[in-house]
Amino acid sequence: MVSTIDSKPKIDGFRMPGEFEQHLGTWMLWPTRTDTWRSGAKPAQKAYVEVAKSISRFEPVTIGVTSNQFEHARALLPKNIRVVEISSNDAWMRDIGPTFVKNDKGEVRGIDWTFNAWGGLDEGLYFPWDQDSLVKPKVFEIAQTHRYDASDIVLEGGAITVDGEGTLITTEQCLLNPNRNPHLSKLDVEKKLSDYLNIDKVIWLKDGLVGDETDGHVDEVVFFARPGELVIGWTDDPNHPQYNVLHQAYEQLTKETDAKGRKFKIHKIQLPEQISLSEEESQEIDVTASSYNRSSDDTFIATYINCYLCNGGVVIPAFNDPHDEIAINTFKEIFPDREIVPVYTREISVGGGNIHCITQQQPLP
Amino acid sequence: MVSTIDSKPKIDGFRMPGEFEQHLGTWMLWPTRTDTWRSGAKPAQKAYVEVAKSISRFEPVTIGVTSNQFEHARALLPKNIRVVEISSNDAWMRDIGPTFVKNDKGEVRGIDWTFNAWGGLDEGLYFPWDQDSLVKPKVFEIAQTHRYDASDIVLEGGAITVDGEGTLITTEQCLLNPNRNPHLSKLDVEKKLSDYLNIDKVIWLKDGLVGDETDGHVDEVVFFARPGELVIGWTDDPNHPQYNVLHQAYEQLTKETDAKGRKFKIHKIQLPEQISLSEEESQEIDVTASSYNRSSDDTFIATYINCYLCNGGVVIPAFNDPHDEIAINTFKEIFPDREIVPVYTREISVGGGNIHCITQQQPLP
Repeated sequence: MVSTIDSKPKIDGFRMPGEFEQHLGTWMLWPTRTDTWRSGAKPAQKAYVEVAKSISRFEPVTIGVTSNQFEHARALLPKNIRVVEISSNDAWMRDIGPTFVKNDKGEVRGIDWTFNAWGGLDEGLYFPWDQDSLVKPKVFEIAQTHRYDASDIVLEGGAITVDGEGTLITTEQCLLNPNRNPHLSKLDVEKKLSDYLNIDKVIWLKDGLVGDETDGHVDEVVFFARPGELVIGWTDDPNHPQYNVLHQAYEQLTKETDAKGRKFKIHKIQLPEQISLSEEESQEIDVTASSYNRSSDDTFIATYINCYLCNGGVVIPAFNDPHDEIAINTFKEIFPDREIVPVYTREISVGGGNIHCITQQQPLP
Repeated sequence: MVSTIDSKPKIDGFRMPGEFEQHLGTWMLWPTRTDTWRSGAKPAQKAYVEVAKSISRFEPVTIGVTSNQFEHARALLPKNIRVVEISSNDAWMRDIGPTFVKNDKGEVRGIDWTFNAWGGLDEGLYFPWDQDSLVKPKVFEIAQTHRYDASDIVLEGGAITVDGEGTLITTEQCLLNPNRNPHLSKLDVEKKLSDYLNIDKVIWLKDGLVGDETDGHVDEVVFFARPGELVIGWTDDPNHPQYNVLHQAYEQLTKETDAKGRKFKIHKIQLPEQISLSEEESQEIDVTASSYNRSSDDTFIATYINCYLCNGGVVIPAFNDPHDEIAINTFKEIFPDREIVPVYTREISVGGGNIHCITQQQPLP
């Protein structure tokens, strides 16, 4: 039974747990767009398989696949990963999929945000996004979780990070972007985050990373390791394209307190070199008028921050960059109780995101 | 985890339970073919909704829907019915879906028969059936049941009825049809039914009903009410088109014994008038070269035998025929412990089947 609950999660005693809390499992989608992913999406699919395999060592993984790729995805993925038919326009479950909230009585419910392909007809990444919009309801049907209708706000999961104890960090660039919620003031957005996720304090960073197609998702910048502890991307090189944004965010966060009044402990993870497509690679991507055009002139974000905390593990991006090793060691220090699993994800980066963007946790009831 | 078990159900101690045994739930599909169903399949969809609603009073129902009809199906069906995306070429879950087997240790597994659209390129009902062939694997993924690969035999669920205690009834017309298993002898088929369903005795009727597009499925002729008891369609009118087939089947079954050596108690249910499409109705069906052409000259089967036993209920076809009332009363006598629920299903009949054809039970572990 999937009912739409005519109330708000906060009123009902539900909250969005931190990603570091226990999961029932992970939801993903299968990449197929030949105008997003080069070479018929085959290199990206291989990277997705490696991500899914790595997560499935720690918790159950379900991947939604469009019908014409069902057999192929089923054949590439190991049997312990569940493959179900879910059509989608692209494969970023963090943003296309639901956010889940839970209460203390063992109940989990889903939030059905409005999705507009990261900006709708005003600089969104593709058109249409009709199948994406049905992904959340389809996940609810399979998971049999009740649903909150949050169609009054455009929000992607990558735009927020929470500590599960009342604090949420986002960016003005994304949530206040005229291509998302032009009808909502900052205060309106805070009210909705409070109502839907049980948030007492919203921390607004100004911008996301340079070159972020999603208009500045916070999940490329910083995430909660646990309540009171943040992990931020970092560079000491003033010429690095992300230097200004990261230093600005860090400065702000050192001065902030969370919903419970705590100062943050902030861990820094050095960024690798940013990524670009070769001329040859860019020609392996279909050119269409209805989607973002990827060229060899673009710079694509590379950061270890876009990682995924799963039960007992952290699956982190690797880029065959000298910084990989440093990042792995820093993650080990931050998460002494979790296994750190690097996955080479350059092919996901050049599609516009990374491991966090393509996963969505369903919390343990 | 869905693994393909490299063995046979009989060896592993699994058997196909009788439909009258307890179910975990019911699987269905959603009708959309405009060359099978008149008026864009809308009248058929309404009938499917009524069938699903009736069954859902007794046990959970999951309906697989092609992506472009997901919203519409979700809107028409009550919330307690689970709607999941499963593409299919048509909507006969009995035949397209899996047969489930169980053991005494609480395990259920699925049989992945080969499906060829009731005859393949040799008088099959449509081409292609590529999406149908993936329905069983998709059901296994959602249900998370292990699978037996039965690709060595073409078999539809409507071609068999079992007592769960070693006896199976089928027709020569269907299972020995050259358009199904030309490579298998009668003995070969019996061996496979034994291996896959744990059958000790196969009773072969000669033919199914006249006008059966499926080449004589037994589920239009007779079914097990419980071990040792059969319910057969009947007419005393020698001019009724089904008179000969039913009298021949009855004569044979009165002489047969089941796998345990018991004679059958046989209940008769009088058939209603058979059905045809009006000229106007037949023009509401798309004409295509790749599917069976339904005209106002065709006679479509109407029988109460194509009903569905669910937990505590029997959902039976109704035709607004004077025989409806007699049938309901006879069902009440045969099943004093079950509620009898008639559903008006003329629109399913003119598509070529009825309630049994569009349902598939998943047994309780």
